[in-house]
Amino acid sequence: MFDYRRTHTCGELRSSHIGKIVTLSGWIHRRRDHGGIIFIDLRDRFGLTQLVFDPKTISEELFDQASRLRSEWVISVKGQVIARTEKMINPKLPTGELEIYVKELEILSSSKTPPFSICDEDIEVNEELRLKYRYLDIRRGLVAHNLLLRHQLMLTTRNFMSEQGFVEISTPILGKSTPEGARDYLVPSRIYPGNFYALPQSPQIFKQLLMISGMDRYFQIAPCFRDEDLRSDRQPEFTQIDLEMSFGKPEDIMSIIEELMTKIIQIVSPNTSSISFPKMSYKDCLESYGTDHPDLRFKMPLVRLDDIIEQSEFTVLREQLAQKGCIKAVLVKNGAELSRREIETYTQFVSLFGVSGLAWMKCQSESLSSNITKFFSSELLTDLKNRMQCEIGDLILIAGGEEARINQGLDHLRRKIAKERNLIDPSNMHFAWVTDFPLLRWNTDERRIESEHHPFTSPHSEDLEILNTDPLKVRALTYDLVLNGYEIGGGSQRIHNSELQNKIFEILHLSKNVIQEKFGFFVEALEYGAPPHLGFAFGLDRILMILAKTENIRDVIAFPKTQKASDLMIQTPAKVEKKQLNDLKVQIEPIEIIWT
Amino acid sequence: MFDYRRTHTCGELRSSHIGKIVTLSGWIHRRRDHGGIIFIDLRDRFGLTQLVFDPKTISEELFDQASRLRSEWVISVKGQVIARTEKMINPKLPTGELEIYVKELEILSSSKTPPFSICDEDIEVNEELRLKYRYLDIRRGLVAHNLLLRHQLMLTTRNFMSEQGFVEISTPILGKSTPEGARDYLVPSRIYPGNFYALPQSPQIFKQLLMISGMDRYFQIAPCFRDEDLRSDRQPEFTQIDLEMSFGKPEDIMSIIEELMTKIIQIVSPNTSSISFPKMSYKDCLESYGTDHPDLRFKMPLVRLDDIIEQSEFTVLREQLAQKGCIKAVLVKNGAELSRREIETYTQFVSLFGVSGLAWMKCQSESLSSNITKFFSSELLTDLKNRMQCEIGDLILIAGGEEARINQGLDHLRRKIAKERNLIDPSNMHFAWVTDFPLLRWNTDERRIESEHHPFTSPHSEDLEILNTDPLKVRALTYDLVLNGYEIGGGSQRIHNSELQNKIFEILHLSKNVIQEKFGFFVEALEYGAPPHLGFAFGLDRILMILAKTENIRDVIAFPKTQKASDLMIQTPAKVEKKQLNDLKVQIEPIEIIWT
Repeated sequence: MFDYRRTHTCGELRSSHIGKIVTLSGWIHRRRDHGGIIFIDLRDRFGLTQLVFDPKTISEELFDQASRLRSEWVISVKGQVIARTEKMINPKLPTGELEIYVKELEILSSSKTPPFSICDEDIEVNEELRLKYRYLDIRRGLVAHNLLLRHQLMLTTRNFMSEQGFVEISTPILGKSTPEGARDYLVPSRIYPGNFYALPQSPQIFKQLLMISGMDRYFQIAPCFRDEDLRSDRQPEFTQIDLEMSFGKPEDIMSIIEELMTKIIQIVSPNTSSISFPKMSYKDCLESYGTDHPDLRFKMPLVRLDDIIEQSEFTVLREQLAQKGCIKAVLVKNGAELSRREIETYTQFVSLFGVSGLAWMKCQSESLSSNITKFFSSELLTDLKNRMQCEIGDLILIAGGEEARINQGLDHLRRKIAKERNLIDPSNMHFAWVTDFPLLRWNTDERRIESEHHPFTSPHSEDLEILNTDPLKVRALTYDLVLNGYEIGGGSQRIHNSELQNKIFEILHLSKNVIQEKFGFFVEALEYGAPPHLGFAFGLDRILMILAKTENIRDVIAFPKTQKASDLMIQTPAKVEKKQLNDLKVQIEPIEIIWT
Repeated sequence: MFDYRRTHTCGELRSSHIGKIVTLSGWIHRRRDHGGIIFIDLRDRFGLTQLVFDPKTISEELFDQASRLRSEWVISVKGQVIARTEKMINPKLPTGELEIYVKELEILSSSKTPPFSICDEDIEVNEELRLKYRYLDIRRGLVAHNLLLRHQLMLTTRNFMSEQGFVEISTPILGKSTPEGARDYLVPSRIYPGNFYALPQSPQIFKQLLMISGMDRYFQIAPCFRDEDLRSDRQPEFTQIDLEMSFGKPEDIMSIIEELMTKIIQIVSPNTSSISFPKMSYKDCLESYGTDHPDLRFKMPLVRLDDIIEQSEFTVLREQLAQKGCIKAVLVKNGAELSRREIETYTQFVSLFGVSGLAWMKCQSESLSSNITKFFSSELLTDLKNRMQCEIGDLILIAGGEEARINQGLDHLRRKIAKERNLIDPSNMHFAWVTDFPLLRWNTDERRIESEHHPFTSPHSEDLEILNTDPLKVRALTYDLVLNGYEIGGGSQRIHNSELQNKIFEILHLSKNVIQEKFGFFVEALEYGAPPHLGFAFGLDRILMILAKTENIRDVIAFPKTQKASDLMIQTPAKVEKKQLNDLKVQIEPIEIIWT
């Protein structure tokens, strides 16, 4: 019987193999009949190799068999490696200098005609169809490539973290619902009907307990879950690279993360040597970029002009200052060429974020020109030009109003202009640390104070005195990592003192009952000798999206869910048997899902 | 301010460090006051170091501070490494040649008195208390040690599998309930009320889909779930090392697993060189050991005596043969010394398994003696003695009856005797492959045919012809791995043909509807060119139990559940808020759980 075990993969043969008898197995990628000869590109994960069935050199039976072959059938062949004639060499293919003259053929599986082309990667396929036939979509190459990258990233991370003395420890997936954070996925308990486990949104409490356990340095590539209405870049199930260490300070963990990130970048760009990780406080970051996760691949900072406007006669903007607003501007390099109509589109754009208008000035000669220069003395104009570092050919856009809106509007404007004017080198990777976030924030919808990160974050020791009097001003010992405008991870020093932890819970207006029921065990654990500890977590999927240069999170996950949290291939969620619900004592009438 | 960041761990200092100024941080393990001097053993995960507070050499303030220290407080100290005097050297401690003369002390956390002693590892602590205060239990060392072993095992596995060309791919945890197998944990869908996800019992279908995707070689250290009433060695959440490959045959995957197992054993026994992995068919294994997962660290096989008994006058046993039973015997080396009363306890023991009696013969001189030798001719006795390889001083125990009962009874008897008579070298690791299990079995309770492994297992090609006529006789292409009497893993060649897969579902009496609803997508996937593929899976927890020499699965898991699937520390499962259930449209009244 024919042994389908290959001697080489379809990407492996080179001219040094010419003359050898080999066995290859794989899928029929493409078939061409040319001058009575059948040519087949045989495919596996490793590449393509050309097979030749020449009726002059093989039996009629074998040629007949070859004639029946169709796309995506799985075959195994034995044959001889032959050099292609010079003009038949395919320089795009690593195996392009040779072909296999097939002597034996075994058909391992036939295939129906696929619902979309496998061999033509460039054809855009409807994503629902791709997800329904994910196993065919993976064969097309893009997702397979990302899965290999994901594997390398995980292995690199694990080996690096282990070398740094971190121990990978799995924490429970059947956890407990907590009142803070997003909505939990719940799992009904059969043994205790009406009670539920919750799938973890992060291993936060467990990793802190591991520090209290004395494990010293922990990490985990952890599955996490969130039952939220999904944005396009979110999944109900996502993966977090999670770590925690004892007896360290923020700069220690930051330097470990920097080294790890460098190793991760080197997976896709092996020649990367040293990457810089500039640090900014949250306050400075907001001042200069209007956001806490700026894209620093291009400059164009936000520049404050409060004092200059104050001295001008420009009443529209002075009015904003009088109402406790602020004035900020951005410089558009070589933007003086823009027409009024083009500038008008920017004005409309920022109005989406509640910014009421944009004033502009062009630097077409030595001085600034605009319909508003008349409100400024020439000295003020010189000050303004210098502060903006404005040169001939540049454009200044100025906005005034409530600070949060101005920040949001100019942040978006800054990114829009950079994209339109090609200011971003896509091969560039620009990291930055943003530190010292506020500990707490005001949730306008729910009218209550909530944690900016999570309730276990340590306040700055010098801000402890205003914790009662001015809690929203308290800075936290946090450090977020930003890459190319995305917040890819964050961490903090944790509270390791039960009294302070209880105090924070109180400020968050958690009732004593809730604290006891949900966090009682944790506050108790802090009473048995907790070391100073701190940690970090970052989204594996997000980093992969950046490395794989895709905006679609589903392209970096083997079997993702849709934005309605369903799996179109296995068709879940799904009805279950009555008996299963009876076991759980759960009553519910299922709604019908129509799968297309 | 004092910087608590250590220069060394508590297990690191050696005599080469003497004279150095160091900073150590950790927990107070033990404190002794001796001749007015305070000695403290400072502990972290890496070891113990002795601290000395000598009132003659330090300030009164520092000595007072040291006097307040109690067990499990967390401190950081700065001091000088000093050689201990010869008679104070502790050879049991790697740091035993030195001590630290403390110059500065910072108390980082105090601790209440723990509910059990941390420093006295040998004291038996009630397991419920250990689980409730898991973070303190881990500090005691045993579980911490096992977690480090677990980490090493996972990392070794990942690097080895990766070197072999396997790609780690995470499969979904929000999966779909399937009708085969154990009870699923369900997760209610909020978007589609009344529909459910199921947590996976294994990634079986996904890994096969990855082979159909062309990923070629997959592995995963996968969290798996099973909502069953728990035996003491089971957990609701467990971990499976899972792999699958295309275009291979059983011997290929067996040799990969053998190499991996050797690497795993070398973690605890670095000097292990070559381990043997003998192979046995299921049929031969049952014949010789009465079980499909024999402990081969000792011999003592079951020996069939049907023909010899047939020729004897021993009517009691001949009667069993007449009723289609069998006669098997075991040899107890040097067992002739056993009294009738001792043999009687064995008879009672096997009766628990439905074996009606044990006949015995002793070899106290050249010939066999017993109250039943009179039923045998001297030639038959010689035959029997030779077949049993019986020598002077040995005992033969014979049982007859229904084959399954005899196998079960003698298997248990064999292990009981081995344990009692110390025939097992606990440092020995004895692997064996057991191949060619039956494809199907008869479920007596439910009166239906079910899969012995799972419905995707490929039958032996030479048995395909009896699939319809005599399905219970069909052998499967399976290979189970046995270690020291435990089945630690298993795998099989899979069906890669949709017609055969449908045929098997039919034999399992799954209705067309159920096949379509639960497995429709999978059968369809098989129609698009599935490669021959095969895989293996083994329980990480079980292997760790064997390596860590514990019978308690909870000792190898950081935060395990009880046999009632609850977590005593975080107290889950738990009630959730009404709003959460409303979101899911789930109606249920919670029962109250009393946590002690």
